[in-house]
Amino acid sequence: MERRVEPRLPRGMRDILPAQMILRQYVIGTIQEVFERFGFEPLQTPAIELSEIFTGKYGEDAEHLIYRLARQADKGPELVLRYDLTVPLCRVIAQYPELVKPFKRYQIAPVWRGERPQKGRYREFYQCDADTIGTSSVMADAEMLNIIYEVLTRLGFKSFVININNRKVLGGIGRLSGVPEEVLPVLYRSIDKLDKIGEEGVRHELGALDAARMPDETVDRLLGLLNIRCGTEEMVARLGKDLEAYPEAAEGVAELREIVGCLRGLGIPEDCYRIVPSMVRGLGYYTGPIFETVVKEPKIGSITGGGRYDRLVGMFTQRSYPATGTTIGIERIIDVMEEMKMFPPEVGPTVTKVLVTRFSPDMVEASLKCATSLRRAGINTEAYFESDPLGDQIRYALKKGIRFVAVVGPDEAAAGKVTIKNLAAGKQETLALDDAVARLCRWDMP
Amino acid sequence: MERRVEPRLPRGMRDILPAQMILRQYVIGTIQEVFERFGFEPLQTPAIELSEIFTGKYGEDAEHLIYRLARQADKGPELVLRYDLTVPLCRVIAQYPELVKPFKRYQIAPVWRGERPQKGRYREFYQCDADTIGTSSVMADAEMLNIIYEVLTRLGFKSFVININNRKVLGGIGRLSGVPEEVLPVLYRSIDKLDKIGEEGVRHELGALDAARMPDETVDRLLGLLNIRCGTEEMVARLGKDLEAYPEAAEGVAELREIVGCLRGLGIPEDCYRIVPSMVRGLGYYTGPIFETVVKEPKIGSITGGGRYDRLVGMFTQRSYPATGTTIGIERIIDVMEEMKMFPPEVGPTVTKVLVTRFSPDMVEASLKCATSLRRAGINTEAYFESDPLGDQIRYALKKGIRFVAVVGPDEAAAGKVTIKNLAAGKQETLALDDAVARLCRWDMP
Repeated sequence: MERRVEPRLPRGMRDILPAQMILRQYVIGTIQEVFERFGFEPLQTPAIELSEIFTGKYGEDAEHLIYRLARQADKGPELVLRYDLTVPLCRVIAQYPELVKPFKRYQIAPVWRGERPQKGRYREFYQCDADTIGTSSVMADAEMLNIIYEVLTRLGFKSFVININNRKVLGGIGRLSGVPEEVLPVLYRSIDKLDKIGEEGVRHELGALDAARMPDETVDRLLGLLNIRCGTEEMVARLGKDLEAYPEAAEGVAELREIVGCLRGLGIPEDCYRIVPSMVRGLGYYTGPIFETVVKEPKIGSITGGGRYDRLVGMFTQRSYPATGTTIGIERIIDVMEEMKMFPPEVGPTVTKVLVTRFSPDMVEASLKCATSLRRAGINTEAYFESDPLGDQIRYALKKGIRFVAVVGPDEAAAGKVTIKNLAAGKQETLALDDAVARLCRWDMP
Repeated sequence: MERRVEPRLPRGMRDILPAQMILRQYVIGTIQEVFERFGFEPLQTPAIELSEIFTGKYGEDAEHLIYRLARQADKGPELVLRYDLTVPLCRVIAQYPELVKPFKRYQIAPVWRGERPQKGRYREFYQCDADTIGTSSVMADAEMLNIIYEVLTRLGFKSFVININNRKVLGGIGRLSGVPEEVLPVLYRSIDKLDKIGEEGVRHELGALDAARMPDETVDRLLGLLNIRCGTEEMVARLGKDLEAYPEAAEGVAELREIVGCLRGLGIPEDCYRIVPSMVRGLGYYTGPIFETVVKEPKIGSITGGGRYDRLVGMFTQRSYPATGTTIGIERIIDVMEEMKMFPPEVGPTVTKVLVTRFSPDMVEASLKCATSLRRAGINTEAYFESDPLGDQIRYALKKGIRFVAVVGPDEAAAGKVTIKNLAAGKQETLALDDAVARLCRWDMP
């Protein structure tokens, strides 16, 4: 046969082996259920898109990270692997104008970025997005926060906070402080680092902007406004008063007020969200409400991010649509849940609940019948195939983390019974097959 | 903003819009559940692999279809998109020797092939594989057939037949007929087309093999053996007798006999499978039992295919492992199920069961409370966000295929009630919220 090839993966790629994959499916399944509960529909777009679809959407640095396919012999157009799920969604909206609006969709799928690999960071990773296209109502933004709250609560997160801000408010604060219009983008980038580099760092960066001619007083006023920390009620009132002279900013404050009203109506606990005027979110395409979720413990940055992007669809079609959405960082969520041991005990390390042993060749048929009965009752059941000693078969179950072992020997077969061993409890019992099935369905074995 | 880009896809790629995606998820979910029911564990491998992993596995023609990535600036190794899921599985087995054997895994994921696109054929498509690595027991092969039977039955397929054969038997038939050893691969390719080109076609192709020096008599004997059609019992007996002089072929017959015994023990109806001595399956790497499933109506070729491949893992590691597996052709299955209208009525065209309308701005909070109650009860519920006339809101539900509409007006809110409209039945009823939730859970609305 052919030469032997060393089994290995490219840099930044990984395999997800079953024990890990089961945790992953639990998280993805939970999120998918919540998305559908709120009426988001599944959508699938291909991994391969035309290069031009992604051009000019993420900035030049990001564009370098896009994976390009080698040109085929037929010299077709340049093809790339998708960099995210939001830009393909906007393409879909433009390409199928017949889709009923508002169009609510979710997509949970891998994206590829040629970033420098580091611990916990891969070049293929899953994005998990819900978006609502075609409505300007901030109820759609509030719903994103509702979904985040629901997902994180179901997964067992206790101490998380959704930070909320609004791009229009950020603009107003800049203008109010006397920051020249053309410096606003630089200002955003600097403010975005407030948590990382601290007030002094931001002060230094802004002071260094000679072109901006920002006097100390402007910077002081700006930081003063950005650093307000108080309850949402008071925050909305203060921002409303401070920014009333700036129509766009006042609109942003009104949106914040309405969102907070919705969250209260939805019964979301007040300590789960707050308005943070200094929160920016990196992406350039946001136009209104923006939000992200941080967990207090462990410190790992944000685990969700999103906001309103009313102009992105317009890059593909004359008729643009307002849009809002959130991405849920499942890779980080899985890491945190593992670190904090948050997975329910019944999740993993195997999908299999029962191993039916092979007592002897002439017991094979009876054993298969037992396996079939268990499966028909909805119990995930593996049948052992080799004629190994029973001890080896039990050791196999232990190594795989299978909790129950069923033995059908000649005595059991003659009596229509089965012996069930509970490996964790170190107990066993011989029961009628039907009783064993019923008991195993309820997990309550001896 | 940036120039407008035409929204379109590369050749051979497609979007799967929600109505279609819901059907797809139904099929995938059913298959996944069956795979786990038999103790197969989920595994995920990356889309991007090293080129060398796939080299020399599929033959030269297929290798041309592999998508290659453009070289990165750092001149790394050549990267490609996976061509199937079986070769990556073999890499995984070799790369993680600590995986407990037998290792049973499933993977449902896209693969990419630069084939000429045609109706119903895409360059990105899903494969859906279950494989058992590390056992020579034909019980593992029989289990594959059991899984296929279970999946197709659950999906509502009524008239399908699993064709079973064995590569060792095929070899024996060739030798018995006097076909020279070196002509066997050519023989396989020709026999594989028996269904398509008929006996005369095969006779013509084999006759043309001058090098093979096959007299008419050899071809007659061969076609006689290949064309036997009879019950499995009689088939096993006849093959056993005809091939007893060829040890490897006799081994193959013994395997067929054992598989048929298992299928009988598993209670699989006898008209769901048959032994077809002329069935070859294209792939070169099969070594023992092989199987495929055909549906009688409509004529669309095989919808599953698989077999034993005991030497493939050995291409990556010194310690090889016997292996068997099946692939389930979900793309074809979905096409057939749509054509034959086999999807249950409750599947699609939307995930949403209830639309909660927005009666007026001051009813928003009461409406959101109603939506939350429905969601808490497990009912997929969308809330309407715009202040459109009620008629428009109902038309939206109709366009999306949402079956129920909930209205909370001032009268309902004052009485703690909700009006539920069953759009298909054209009926409505005003109920206490709790009663409405309970009724909608059971679908039994007026």
